[in-house]
Amino acid sequence: MTPRIVTLTSDFGRDWYAGAMRGAVLNRAPGVTLVDITHDIPPQDIQAGAFALAAACTAFPPGTIHVAVVDPGVGGSRRPLAFRVGQDVVLGPDNGLLVLALEALRGARAVAAPVSARVIDPARIAPGGLSQTFHGRDLFAPAAGALAEGEPFESLGESTTAWQALHLPPALRTATGWELAVLHVDSFGSLVTNLRTEALGTEMWRWTSPRGPVAHVQASYDAVPRGGVLLIGGSAGFIELAVRDGRASDLLGLSRGSRLTLMPS
Amino acid sequence: MTPRIVTLTSDFGRDWYAGAMRGAVLNRAPGVTLVDITHDIPPQDIQAGAFALAAACTAFPPGTIHVAVVDPGVGGSRRPLAFRVGQDVVLGPDNGLLVLALEALRGARAVAAPVSARVIDPARIAPGGLSQTFHGRDLFAPAAGALAEGEPFESLGESTTAWQALHLPPALRTATGWELAVLHVDSFGSLVTNLRTEALGTEMWRWTSPRGPVAHVQASYDAVPRGGVLLIGGSAGFIELAVRDGRASDLLGLSRGSRLTLMPS
Amino acid sequence: MTPRIVTLTSDFGRDWYAGAMRGAVLNRAPGVTLVDITHDIPPQDIQAGAFALAAACTAFPPGTIHVAVVDPGVGGSRRPLAFRVGQDVVLGPDNGLLVLALEALRGARAVAAPVSARVIDPARIAPGGLSQTFHGRDLFAPAAGALAEGEPFESLGESTTAWQALHLPPALRTATGWELAVLHVDSFGSLVTNLRTEALGTEMWRWTSPRGPVAHVQASYDAVPRGGVLLIGGSAGFIELAVRDGRASDLLGLSRGSRLTLMPS
Repeated sequence: MTPRIVTLTSDFGRDWYAGAMRGAVLNRAPGVTLVDITHDIPPQDIQAGAFALAAACTAFPPGTIHVAVVDPGVGGSRRPLAFRVGQDVVLGPDNGLLVLALEALRGARAVAAPVSARVIDPARIAPGGLSQTFHGRDLFAPAAGALAEGEPFESLGESTTAWQALHLPPALRTATGWELAVLHVDSFGSLVTNLRTEALGTEMWRWTSPRGPVAHVQASYDAVPRGGVLLIGGSAGFIELAVRDGRASDLLGLSRGSRLTLMPS
Repeated sequence: MTPRIVTLTSDFGRDWYAGAMRGAVLNRAPGVTLVDITHDIPPQDIQAGAFALAAACTAFPPGTIHVAVVDPGVGGSRRPLAFRVGQDVVLGPDNGLLVLALEALRGARAVAAPVSARVIDPARIAPGGLSQTFHGRDLFAPAAGALAEGEPFESLGESTTAWQALHLPPALRTATGWELAVLHVDSFGSLVTNLRTEALGTEMWRWTSPRGPVAHVQASYDAVPRGGVLLIGGSAGFIELAVRDGRASDLLGLSRGSRLTLMPS
Repeated sequence: MTPRIVTLTSDFGRDWYAGAMRGAVLNRAPGVTLVDITHDIPPQDIQAGAFALAAACTAFPPGTIHVAVVDPGVGGSRRPLAFRVGQDVVLGPDNGLLVLALEALRGARAVAAPVSARVIDPARIAPGGLSQTFHGRDLFAPAAGALAEGEPFESLGESTTAWQALHLPPALRTATGWELAVLHVDSFGSLVTNLRTEALGTEMWRWTSPRGPVAHVQASYDAVPRGGVLLIGGSAGFIELAVRDGRASDLLGLSRGSRLTLMPS
């Protein structure tokens, strides 16, 4: 039988925390397949964590258990949650971190049933007690391990039907064009907007930089010369503003939250 | 049968060295479960490596094999060592890197028997020879692989009963309070002191910053407002000085080795 | 039966891309052993990726599948390739990234047969289509997964006998000494040259810094005092210029591409 897959996403960076969380999963489920999505979410940046988890989670096979920890409210009143979307499970704090992944998985797996949710009960998962500052190791990892070992989802805790949202600016279709915002600057400096590629349709669009260059929608980077700017359907499903063989964020002076207007081309 | 778990801790950073070490373990033990603790120990920083390994190793299940390599003396006269603590094994250079983990494992597993140690014999583990600069790949990884494949601990080499210590400043109880030192600044900027949480007792304590703010021992971050300073029992078992939603190291101007005085609150 | 090993090497850095690629391999081959070589190749730096892959790949057992993605030409006319060297397979873009690994594997495994190559056919591997910007996830990872699941190498696509080279400056033996170039600055600041250690022979050599210090070939770092400069046979098989307990690149003002002259000692 193929072992269950558990993914980890966090803002633990270079420290020992990700290692300890891996240990805590294996301590409960020693045969599991552990995979990192990333631990380099900027510290306490819930939106960045939500984006990364949502973008990567659909690449994994159904039945994967995703654990995400960007958790500035650890030890306080924020609830620890577990979501089930079809065969997949997503675990983490109730601060908006998980909600984009829930949407992404529902779409990617064509799940018709609503998401079901449980409040993870520390008394069931960590009866020996847990630290005040590291629920990734002490609560979410053991909960993932318990599920991987076959514990039923319902055993994690009481059911809940409400949770924190994550408010991202929507892409707006205006009378003359599109008003976009940058959701994410990727490791290559490309600017991921909030406009879904499929929403753009077949009409042609351009973006004009206040600094001069004009970007058109292109099918690949090499449609423009080196250093040229372009719009392209990115791998997370959104339109990106990029520079061939260069860093768009640096060259165009844009960052997360920056606004862009697309006009017909 | 569940495969053996081998963890890796090093200062190899972003380079290919961690990859090669993973390969060398798998080359000897292809079915093993390989897990990173971290490879982002600052280059040649033995104390930081010792702290990370000790903090993370106890989260793994008994029977785990831990390999740690922060090894400025590689190729010279420093000995390659293997320690057995109960069912766990810890491998690495004899420079103090492993000793905090030995203490941590003894405590966490309630191991009554003394630690036993072997000097890893290159002639047994790497009979084809080894490089002058990379014993992580050429000696420690194959030794871990051999153990994971069932080789007896005793086969690694001759027994030894002495090894390098790691001298950390102790937390001092004075007539008026506690004199502490910062052992580690974590990836969130929190300052991990050398005072074990359980040593603090139930009396109330405070720390007063020369810059003004006063930190009290709190049960969770949200006991103080955003930007507020607090003392909290951290996840490695030590009292930490932290700032809610902020970086204590930056805001308080403290770093590893800084001294702190706690006074009754 | 031991699961197949799939390694990943990329310039994806801290973003979610490596996570998604891991998912895409597991989606096709859920039981595989996934291992990172590194994802910290500088963005779009083909030479650095080629060096890291070549240096690390030979540490893995025969039968390993290596996937490397440093792919500035993604979505354009560059071909996706798969190479077979003995029992090993190497997958990635046709931009020179893989060729040093092919040489390294042929040497390490003493493979007499020539390398065989296929152009990965998206219609066979990703019949549902693939993104314009992320063939690591959409093409190379599924191709690796297919091979890991037992698909024959020949099924990946049509055979090819020509591919891009990677031009590195050769080490030159002159009438008076050796003219070298720095191929790589490692995470410790050591300068890896293009001179194979075995080419140096038993004659003694020295390098004289314009800043004063003289480096001689040494058998280990501790042959010089702390802060001393030395030449040493490095773990990738090349002569390195290093500083004991220091960063040679910083102290000597050298970087990739820098030229060095060795003279008889």
